[in-house]
Amino acid sequence: MANSVRIGLVQMSCSADVAANMGKAAERIRQAAASGAQIICLQELFRSPYFCQTEDPACFDLAEPIPGPTTDLLCQLARETETVVIASLFERRAPGLYHNTAAVMDADGSLLGIYRKMHIPDDPLYYEKYYFTPGDTGFRAFGTRYARIGVLVCWDQWFPEGARLTALHGADILFYPTAIGWHPKEKERFGKAQHEAWELMQRSHAVANGVYVAAVNRVGFEGQPQSGLEFWGASFVADPFGVVLQRASHDKEEIVLADCDLEHLENVRRHWPFLRDRRIDVYHDLTRRFIDEPDDPRWQGG
Amino acid sequence: MANSVRIGLVQMSCSADVAANMGKAAERIRQAAASGAQIICLQELFRSPYFCQTEDPACFDLAEPIPGPTTDLLCQLARETETVVIASLFERRAPGLYHNTAAVMDADGSLLGIYRKMHIPDDPLYYEKYYFTPGDTGFRAFGTRYARIGVLVCWDQWFPEGARLTALHGADILFYPTAIGWHPKEKERFGKAQHEAWELMQRSHAVANGVYVAAVNRVGFEGQPQSGLEFWGASFVADPFGVVLQRASHDKEEIVLADCDLEHLENVRRHWPFLRDRRIDVYHDLTRRFIDEPDDPRWQGG
Repeated sequence: MANSVRIGLVQMSCSADVAANMGKAAERIRQAAASGAQIICLQELFRSPYFCQTEDPACFDLAEPIPGPTTDLLCQLARETETVVIASLFERRAPGLYHNTAAVMDADGSLLGIYRKMHIPDDPLYYEKYYFTPGDTGFRAFGTRYARIGVLVCWDQWFPEGARLTALHGADILFYPTAIGWHPKEKERFGKAQHEAWELMQRSHAVANGVYVAAVNRVGFEGQPQSGLEFWGASFVADPFGVVLQRASHDKEEIVLADCDLEHLENVRRHWPFLRDRRIDVYHDLTRRFIDEPDDPRWQGG
Repeated sequence: MANSVRIGLVQMSCSADVAANMGKAAERIRQAAASGAQIICLQELFRSPYFCQTEDPACFDLAEPIPGPTTDLLCQLARETETVVIASLFERRAPGLYHNTAAVMDADGSLLGIYRKMHIPDDPLYYEKYYFTPGDTGFRAFGTRYARIGVLVCWDQWFPEGARLTALHGADILFYPTAIGWHPKEKERFGKAQHEAWELMQRSHAVANGVYVAAVNRVGFEGQPQSGLEFWGASFVADPFGVVLQRASHDKEEIVLADCDLEHLENVRRHWPFLRDRRIDVYHDLTRRFIDEPDDPRWQGG
């Protein structure tokens, strides 16, 4: 497969020891590279536990500038292993101005660019609106040595608009660094459907846009037994047909490897030419919050 | 379930006898109504075989005005059964101007409105661009007696934009009358993945928008044995979590019944508040065909 690229997803657990998490991630990048991975993606906020379970001003100390110590280290690793590295970081942009940012290091060790998470959640145990200013980069694609890729982050997964815009920028593979898990009290009743909905949304981005989609999630339990989060892992890669090529377990540290054949992508898009038939003349209302209808009694006067 | 509505999907095969197809559809509407269905949806172009397998000017004779004989008959049936009826028709709007149009009859027998298929396919055996002028209604919602609904048609299934805009108009249930099947030569190799991609795309619309989605497809083989289409049925209803509530067989005529609980819909949207977090300030490029990037060698000068 001349036009194929091997990607590696590092699914791991995190402790409170930031240096240890960084060391583990570096070791796994080397492992993935040794297995032939050319583009390697770490999970969301891989340097620390998922601190957004509480609103604590001390947690802002975890943030760092980009470029900064972590991207310096990862650029060096990228150059050494000749791999593209995607890292999700807590970015300190200015005092009081922080973002959830993905940095892309190219295989020559350069910092190719960043993407700042555009869609920010705020739900019990995912208090991200407290920490992260919504991104102002817009949706982007990065021309790396091995493929043109896009990076989106976690909550972005649920928004077809983000995947579409990234694909329209020419990305052939969408990466989603992620931190999502089960509430212990919800898992039994809703856990299966929650995980399935999460996976199917991202597979749908692959189909709708004719791209590969790679999601990488953390594993492990963080927080108190009855009130913390059990991160559900299940990192996976889907092809442009939506077929899952590889899927990790729910509870083990793993490196997911998958080959993305860019000729297959071209072929799928020829058979399902959705980009040809988009009705761009009538999509302008997608920039509206809601379209209040006078005949809808629920929304009247809205 | 005070705030629940029962929907009925009529999955059937069609012969060349238009009157017989109409009679069968009418009988099934009565059956569905007798089973408690309140909103009943017929499959795409239910009055005839799927004539778009060839480009034949004689097939335009199948078209009829709206309102016209078929909507007159269905309005009468809607009034008689006190059901909402959704019918996909070949609309003759003016000489040489035809659409693939869905008509919505309210439970009082009135013709509530129409939706003209916006995304028109054109692929081997699906030569729809020959027959159907792309719709000019835009995406709509209809306030019926039992629920606020949206109707999209077949190829629209693959476009998240259509589902989103219809949901933004306040639709709580999206109906997709459909005619999709397997090419005999492709079925063995690709058939499973094709059907799965089709279903998952529509389930993703349910999740992304927090709505119910109901797809109704025809069954039966139409055309020559090695060059025709085996319509794959599998009509289904998914809830706002993306969970498939009911799914018909691939090859039998069936009436699919499912209860849609609008309180469940409200609850799902509270837990997954995607409409809250859409980045409407940066979605304007969704009206572009592609975003040509100077650094992408494939698209340079585009």
